[in-house]
Amino acid sequence: MDIYFEKLTILGVGLIGGSFARVCKKNGLAKSIFGFGRQEANLRKAVELGVIDDYSLDLNKAVEQADFVLIAVPVASIIPLVEQMSSSLKKGSIVSDVGSVKNSLVEKIEKILPKGVQFVGAHPIAGTEHSGVEASFAELFEGSKCILTPTKLTDHETLQKVKKLWKLMGSEISLMDPVKHDEIMAAVSHLPHVAAYAITSFIFDLRHAWPDILSYSAGGFRDFTRIASSHPAMWCDICNYNREALMKMIEQYESSLNQFKTMIKDKNWFQLEKTMSEAKTLRDSFYRNS
Amino acid sequence: MDIYFEKLTILGVGLIGGSFARVCKKNGLAKSIFGFGRQEANLRKAVELGVIDDYSLDLNKAVEQADFVLIAVPVASIIPLVEQMSSSLKKGSIVSDVGSVKNSLVEKIEKILPKGVQFVGAHPIAGTEHSGVEASFAELFEGSKCILTPTKLTDHETLQKVKKLWKLMGSEISLMDPVKHDEIMAAVSHLPHVAAYAITSFIFDLRHAWPDILSYSAGGFRDFTRIASSHPAMWCDICNYNREALMKMIEQYESSLNQFKTMIKDKNWFQLEKTMSEAKTLRDSFYRNS
Repeated sequence: MDIYFEKLTILGVGLIGGSFARVCKKNGLAKSIFGFGRQEANLRKAVELGVIDDYSLDLNKAVEQADFVLIAVPVASIIPLVEQMSSSLKKGSIVSDVGSVKNSLVEKIEKILPKGVQFVGAHPIAGTEHSGVEASFAELFEGSKCILTPTKLTDHETLQKVKKLWKLMGSEISLMDPVKHDEIMAAVSHLPHVAAYAITSFIFDLRHAWPDILSYSAGGFRDFTRIASSHPAMWCDICNYNREALMKMIEQYESSLNQFKTMIKDKNWFQLEKTMSEAKTLRDSFYRNS
Repeated sequence: MDIYFEKLTILGVGLIGGSFARVCKKNGLAKSIFGFGRQEANLRKAVELGVIDDYSLDLNKAVEQADFVLIAVPVASIIPLVEQMSSSLKKGSIVSDVGSVKNSLVEKIEKILPKGVQFVGAHPIAGTEHSGVEASFAELFEGSKCILTPTKLTDHETLQKVKKLWKLMGSEISLMDPVKHDEIMAAVSHLPHVAAYAITSFIFDLRHAWPDILSYSAGGFRDFTRIASSHPAMWCDICNYNREALMKMIEQYESSLNQFKTMIKDKNWFQLEKTMSEAKTLRDSFYRNS
């Protein structure tokens, strides 16, 4: 099956979009790789670095005649971009994204796109603490998971092409229902971020009474709150776009926390140690020595 | 002021006790360093490594004639040891500990110890993920905080000696009321551990529906749950010995989490981003680039 493209367009040439483009270049997947973004300086940098061949600040120009369009912009910008570019997309082209929420996006995108344009939602679970095209590298996706969320509307050949593309990135592919994707991500990613922000925010409030409180924290606290150092605007958008699943997971976490509180209140040390041990065993079985 | 000891005894020659002993050796602080513990193999190893000079499996023998006794055993073992050794302590000797809770311990220890034996509670905020005397090293405490919790009963000269000792370890000394110590530790250490155990436990429950759920987690989740990989028995003891302050902090954290839930429920994205940004700013100001 052919995954060679005459024109491949990346919307948002940052860490993810740039790394994706680098792998395409390396494997000669496209005759020309085109970039689109809001900041010309970044796009110029991407050309200099050889990540893309050319760019346009005009979205419709950037996507016209493209065989494959990858949307690698923040979650909240995806739908507006799809709405705006929809009429310029070539019949037979494939659109995909890398958004970390899927349910609300996939449904809307499928409604907006014209007939003859195929869409497959994707979520590569990869990233570093850095951002921007300078931080991109061809090995970013190697060994990571990439979740694809096809629907009833997805045609078989398109799905195979997108699968092949992500395999080339070095990802391990999982196919998943968009609703299930969002619930799992709410549990293992979105909720932990909210919990870490909430802990940091709680310490922030304690600073009024104890201004030097953080100086008594140790490495465990530093690690524990690292994810509260992510971009607030981005996380607000994720909370917004995955609100329902996230609310459900916050409630389940509150219930788990309440169980711990009750065990401590009731001095049920036997049950507390058992519950902590189960948690530790699960974690250690998955992350050996880290 | 003199801090040379004829006989210095370490109860529990592990990471903390062993590292303390190494610094004493290096600085010629004691004519002889004596060890006590439950496992003879560990004590023999400590002698082989040159961390201690000799040991005894008999607590009373280990502390007799000692000028300074450091209690470096798990929190739950401290009071039983103090009760058992109390009658064998030399008049004029100093006892100190390294327990990570202070209020309930300090009060009890002061009641148990005979007149003429001085006590100063200490909590060096240092550690690694490894344990045991093999993991000990003389630089462990360098640059870390050590909180001392003197009371009305502490005599001035003893406090100065203990301060000098921990300064030699490389620690930055803070004097603190035992109650304040326990509240601060509940906030920046004990609560985060409970929260991390509760998140891991919540994921543990989700495994029934989604057996492969952890495989979709990323580095953020790994860091976030690292502290749930600590020793459950030790953390149960800390929850027990700092129950009151911990309960208070769990409740404050629940309230912070509930505020986040409410902002998400009410789609109050402006306030959510503001609160997240404040939390991020606080964290980033303290931990630069980590």
